[in-house]
Amino acid sequence: MFTTNSHPTGRHFLQIPGPSPVPDRVLRAMSLPTIDHRGPEFGALGRQVLLGMREIFQTKQPVVIYPASGTGAWEAALVNTLSPGDDVLMYETGHFASLWAQLARRLGLKPEVLTLQVDDPVLPNAPGWRRGVQADLIEERLRKDDAHRIKAVCVVHNETSTGVTSDIAAVRRAIDAARHPALLLVDSISGLASADYRHDEWGVDVTVSGSQKGLMLPPGMSFNALSPRALEASKTARLPRSFWAWDEIVEMNKTGYWPYTPNTNLLYGLSESLDMLLGEGLPQVFARHQRWAAGVRAAVEAWGLPIQCADPAVYSPILTGVITPEGVDADEVRRLIHERFDLSLGTGLGKLKGRMFRMGHLGDSNDLTLVAMVAGVEMGLKLAGVPLADSGVRAIMAHFERG
Amino acid sequence: MFTTNSHPTGRHFLQIPGPSPVPDRVLRAMSLPTIDHRGPEFGALGRQVLLGMREIFQTKQPVVIYPASGTGAWEAALVNTLSPGDDVLMYETGHFASLWAQLARRLGLKPEVLTLQVDDPVLPNAPGWRRGVQADLIEERLRKDDAHRIKAVCVVHNETSTGVTSDIAAVRRAIDAARHPALLLVDSISGLASADYRHDEWGVDVTVSGSQKGLMLPPGMSFNALSPRALEASKTARLPRSFWAWDEIVEMNKTGYWPYTPNTNLLYGLSESLDMLLGEGLPQVFARHQRWAAGVRAAVEAWGLPIQCADPAVYSPILTGVITPEGVDADEVRRLIHERFDLSLGTGLGKLKGRMFRMGHLGDSNDLTLVAMVAGVEMGLKLAGVPLADSGVRAIMAHFERG
Amino acid sequence: MFTTNSHPTGRHFLQIPGPSPVPDRVLRAMSLPTIDHRGPEFGALGRQVLLGMREIFQTKQPVVIYPASGTGAWEAALVNTLSPGDDVLMYETGHFASLWAQLARRLGLKPEVLTLQVDDPVLPNAPGWRRGVQADLIEERLRKDDAHRIKAVCVVHNETSTGVTSDIAAVRRAIDAARHPALLLVDSISGLASADYRHDEWGVDVTVSGSQKGLMLPPGMSFNALSPRALEASKTARLPRSFWAWDEIVEMNKTGYWPYTPNTNLLYGLSESLDMLLGEGLPQVFARHQRWAAGVRAAVEAWGLPIQCADPAVYSPILTGVITPEGVDADEVRRLIHERFDLSLGTGLGKLKGRMFRMGHLGDSNDLTLVAMVAGVEMGLKLAGVPLADSGVRAIMAHFERG
Amino acid sequence: MFTTNSHPTGRHFLQIPGPSPVPDRVLRAMSLPTIDHRGPEFGALGRQVLLGMREIFQTKQPVVIYPASGTGAWEAALVNTLSPGDDVLMYETGHFASLWAQLARRLGLKPEVLTLQVDDPVLPNAPGWRRGVQADLIEERLRKDDAHRIKAVCVVHNETSTGVTSDIAAVRRAIDAARHPALLLVDSISGLASADYRHDEWGVDVTVSGSQKGLMLPPGMSFNALSPRALEASKTARLPRSFWAWDEIVEMNKTGYWPYTPNTNLLYGLSESLDMLLGEGLPQVFARHQRWAAGVRAAVEAWGLPIQCADPAVYSPILTGVITPEGVDADEVRRLIHERFDLSLGTGLGKLKGRMFRMGHLGDSNDLTLVAMVAGVEMGLKLAGVPLADSGVRAIMAHFERG
Repeated sequence: MFTTNSHPTGRHFLQIPGPSPVPDRVLRAMSLPTIDHRGPEFGALGRQVLLGMREIFQTKQPVVIYPASGTGAWEAALVNTLSPGDDVLMYETGHFASLWAQLARRLGLKPEVLTLQVDDPVLPNAPGWRRGVQADLIEERLRKDDAHRIKAVCVVHNETSTGVTSDIAAVRRAIDAARHPALLLVDSISGLASADYRHDEWGVDVTVSGSQKGLMLPPGMSFNALSPRALEASKTARLPRSFWAWDEIVEMNKTGYWPYTPNTNLLYGLSESLDMLLGEGLPQVFARHQRWAAGVRAAVEAWGLPIQCADPAVYSPILTGVITPEGVDADEVRRLIHERFDLSLGTGLGKLKGRMFRMGHLGDSNDLTLVAMVAGVEMGLKLAGVPLADSGVRAIMAHFERG
Repeated sequence: MFTTNSHPTGRHFLQIPGPSPVPDRVLRAMSLPTIDHRGPEFGALGRQVLLGMREIFQTKQPVVIYPASGTGAWEAALVNTLSPGDDVLMYETGHFASLWAQLARRLGLKPEVLTLQVDDPVLPNAPGWRRGVQADLIEERLRKDDAHRIKAVCVVHNETSTGVTSDIAAVRRAIDAARHPALLLVDSISGLASADYRHDEWGVDVTVSGSQKGLMLPPGMSFNALSPRALEASKTARLPRSFWAWDEIVEMNKTGYWPYTPNTNLLYGLSESLDMLLGEGLPQVFARHQRWAAGVRAAVEAWGLPIQCADPAVYSPILTGVITPEGVDADEVRRLIHERFDLSLGTGLGKLKGRMFRMGHLGDSNDLTLVAMVAGVEMGLKLAGVPLADSGVRAIMAHFERG
Repeated sequence: MFTTNSHPTGRHFLQIPGPSPVPDRVLRAMSLPTIDHRGPEFGALGRQVLLGMREIFQTKQPVVIYPASGTGAWEAALVNTLSPGDDVLMYETGHFASLWAQLARRLGLKPEVLTLQVDDPVLPNAPGWRRGVQADLIEERLRKDDAHRIKAVCVVHNETSTGVTSDIAAVRRAIDAARHPALLLVDSISGLASADYRHDEWGVDVTVSGSQKGLMLPPGMSFNALSPRALEASKTARLPRSFWAWDEIVEMNKTGYWPYTPNTNLLYGLSESLDMLLGEGLPQVFARHQRWAAGVRAAVEAWGLPIQCADPAVYSPILTGVITPEGVDADEVRRLIHERFDLSLGTGLGKLKGRMFRMGHLGDSNDLTLVAMVAGVEMGLKLAGVPLADSGVRAIMAHFERG
Repeated sequence: MFTTNSHPTGRHFLQIPGPSPVPDRVLRAMSLPTIDHRGPEFGALGRQVLLGMREIFQTKQPVVIYPASGTGAWEAALVNTLSPGDDVLMYETGHFASLWAQLARRLGLKPEVLTLQVDDPVLPNAPGWRRGVQADLIEERLRKDDAHRIKAVCVVHNETSTGVTSDIAAVRRAIDAARHPALLLVDSISGLASADYRHDEWGVDVTVSGSQKGLMLPPGMSFNALSPRALEASKTARLPRSFWAWDEIVEMNKTGYWPYTPNTNLLYGLSESLDMLLGEGLPQVFARHQRWAAGVRAAVEAWGLPIQCADPAVYSPILTGVITPEGVDADEVRRLIHERFDLSLGTGLGKLKGRMFRMGHLGDSNDLTLVAMVAGVEMGLKLAGVPLADSGVRAIMAHFERG
């Protein structure tokens, strides 16, 4: 059995930017016996979580829950609203934005990828990966598209590969300013339920999200929050789809059921995590993440290492990317930290491979857990011979002492 | 919280043909903390379950595990092997076969659906839904397809809506006899790990399956077992795909990892259920299901009600469909049984709605649980005023007493 | 690990008269992390369960919760109220009553054991084990005790070894009628929370109970419900005691804490089971047990086997003892049933060894589970060659069909 | 329900010296369904844990497992070996040693309590509570007991209230040097399975222990490891006993069963924790605790606060007591730390109330968890205005970095 593996003593520190640590309450709820997904008890559960998810997305529109992981929900957003060969404008803030573009390409869409070109002495090969979505570039591009060939604008809210949380409202304003009819599709897989996110107020047409980040669940469930315009678009969109098709799901969800078998036990977990999040209050949840992130950044600054995100206005409350000095293999540092301190960190993805690591500070966490993470990283950096300006642990403790 | 709902005392009897009851060991395994899907511990888990699944499918070829429910794996089998507008020959043995055809149609394929036309006094509107796949009809049709326009033959191994387990080896022989190059795609979502299934020996190109039946897991995970020909076909197939695409998954699986986030906690459960099934031995698992099924059929025969499956050669070891007398609403009987005896049965689907109900006898069960199921149904039928020839409970007990 | 043992498939039928099946909700609650038993969160838990247990005992007096199994609570009742060499009047209704007497003897008390002597053709050697406490015998004996040497009367409410539930109010009336000051000590280990039990109204001085029966918890926790007279007696009682001593516990319990480490995780379970029982309502709980017991007795009567309890007025709602024909080894039948049908029954204890078996019908159960139990027993009896008059399964089903 | 209480986010840091954090594997094992404690499956479990516990105690003699918490096992050690009015020599190393003496007194024994009288500028009122058992004082006292009135010597191996681990082999040598027949009774409730403990080699007659410390289980189970001399003594000892009596338990344990209901689900947990501890290897377990303890002491020394244990030879590997400066209420600091950082520490007990706090570093822990504990304490001390010489966090990190 998997669980009898030799395993270090004590709790593992899972500090990747998702999957985030799953609370004990959620794990227990998930271990209750599976019930009939066509029975009355299930219907009550279904209606409860569907309503709860609207509160999480801050929307009054339907939220589609897929029994699939987040990548599927990316695909769903595209195939429900677009047709073969459609132009889509995508903005590359990092690795996940570029994966989404690649996915669009595989589906037969024509993504045009914008990215920022500026001089960046720290990461000359990835300046755009250190900043948020530049809404003005989007506006500019859309203004040129007189023929309205661009059918959708796709951006990532919280870029999990870099630690940048873009301003989605600004993107909406840019599209409106350009008087362009493109749909706005947003990936908030790692942002939802940790960073403030307002599907309706920000005028998003489809928001994509997943279970294993701010919702504090294991992976295996994902979401599309819709807008009336998105639903309208889905009626004429011609990309083939069946599993992802919204129509039957939205219709059957009205009674709390699904057209095909939902993943019942993850829905138990979702019911529990909604209780926890909505019981605490979303503003409290967001404030807690902001406070933690500030503490972690104080540590990185004390070390004298560059934070991946170069623009303080878009620091992520969910994770912090740290750039290692030239010549230091960040993955080697991560490996050492894992082996010595049973602490998992996120790797540098794509063009950042080996140049940075990512510390997750999201979901079911607390001050001491984050101090422990910073301590583990600090010890690992020292053991790897990375010179540090000052103690990051002292800095995060000073931050948390203040309240 | 969901779990504090008022709930009847005692264990619910979940006797639908899937999701099947999840063993306590599996539920506990699933409730262990989520780990990093990029860490070394996960790789060991991944390699273990990928190898174990080959044993379950009785194949030496790769098995693809999707973090998605079974319907997704249907879609995956089609989009990986076929191109827009392709002809596929499908055989309608019941509701799920027709749903698969409908899914193919939504994806832009051209399914041609074969079904059996015979006089059936019991279900005149659904004679084909009482029998297995007629391999001779398939052979006949393929022989006419000189141009080899038909790219795939799609059949359901165990038809969950009716209780018929078709002879897949015969379908392979039919295709070969017709010297036709069509791929053979088989849905064994509800058959795998309960009924004997031999992916390699039977020459299947893609077998589709899911977690929530014989594998005794909650829903949320699904499978494609592949053949070299299927992999070959996937290189030129032109249906758009990304989430379902085999190429990246098969490649990364070599090391025990996935290109996107797998559903970690269900994989814990899979590891546990593989231990249980392979520890018991597949022949023992299959024999156990055959014995149970014979007991349940003895009960139905005692009642004097028709078994949905009209051909004893293809009785399902997994579930038994029971046809209610004209004028008796089978769903009303089910509702009464659920309310009075906390027992869930399967409903009549599609054209069988209200005319039959389904008793599941699969997975983590035992003699007394099945006697209890039969007792609950018998009491419910009596309370609903259905005249019964004799006691089904006595019959199943007599069967089980014999050993 | 224990849980990887080879184990038959499906749910075991645990139909012994305790430990009773533990509900999934309780098992999950028990698996939450252990907390500091001196912290504020624990105090809230402690106060909640201490108040809840008063409702269960139907008392306004303190209930002492021991981190120990039921036998310990027997000892506690004696050592807190009595002094070395004290006379106690005990009434033998079965094996547990005689074990309690034996325990008293080991502690240095002088138990005098009353029992009924009548002709009983079925069990000539144990006529008193087929009937309840005879209050008139107690009254008669107490009237003779002019010197009031008898310090306590000890009786068992629900005799787990026989299936007899004695009339405790009648015992109180007998003591009062004799104008005798003896304390009334009652064992309701297996009766509490399944059969109606009224500590205050019936004038009981100490009621002893345990966790693993009607409270639907694993074993490991036990109880003393007190009366003001019992507390008064404890001030002068001279049997040595420390772990069991009420004084410190009752004092510290006022704030929700214990003088030594309580068994935290069982208290989580107790909190959950109190929610379930008090949420359902005690009258509903008692009625449910009465209905089940009547169904099981209908089955035994159909078989034509004698019920252990010879007096219908004191049939136990918790378990039913069944006497096997001369020459049939009841334990051999039990062994066969366990092996063939994964069903556990209670053995014949003490002088009943091999002559009877016990079917538990308590706690977290339901109609179909009890039908399954009866079916398992019926098949086992047949396989063992025991001639049965008629089908017990048919009888219990007929009973439950009626509502 | 208890578990829906509002609760801070993240994992609580349970750093009291027991109950220690229970590993997830153990919690899951404990949540498996309760089985029949008279069935064959249980017997296998019983035999396994009884043998495993001998390895833990490093003994070839029987180990008695009580379904009761540790205080009960103290009582058991006394009532099985002693008679009313017996003299016992006890050595007061701290609060638990004095509680044991108090318990002996309540049981009618005559404890004579030795303790060390030296000048101690830090804790003038409790010098003996800063050092281990002084074997020479015991030897001296026994030599004077020509009449051999002293029947037992009782000492505490790891004093949970102070953080001192006494030399038990030295006590045995002292008794032998005095040629005294007294039994040696040792409390290793908090020492067992964390500090090296050798029941046979050190010539201990009864060792008392509990589940909730090094065995990493919830409270509710306790132990007596016996010697042939202890068993012999129990045949003539006259303190009344029944629940605690060894005779029946040792006899029935030979087959893996108990005379009364054991606490089944804690035994599941014990089976799992034995797998973990014996799989890791006791020497490795002990080394791990020594390393952790040294790290924590380095932190306390950096702060410039006195460690409770004044003799480095008997520093506890399980917990470290820290003395707060005069005028600082240690409980107020603990309260603040709990509220701000969700970290539980041990309070100062008995005569140390308000003057010290205790940090547990035992059981299922790891480096980062202990760094987090030290960080939480350091922040709390600062917030409480306690002047610190240097950073304890830096010190423990430096310690752990070294390997």
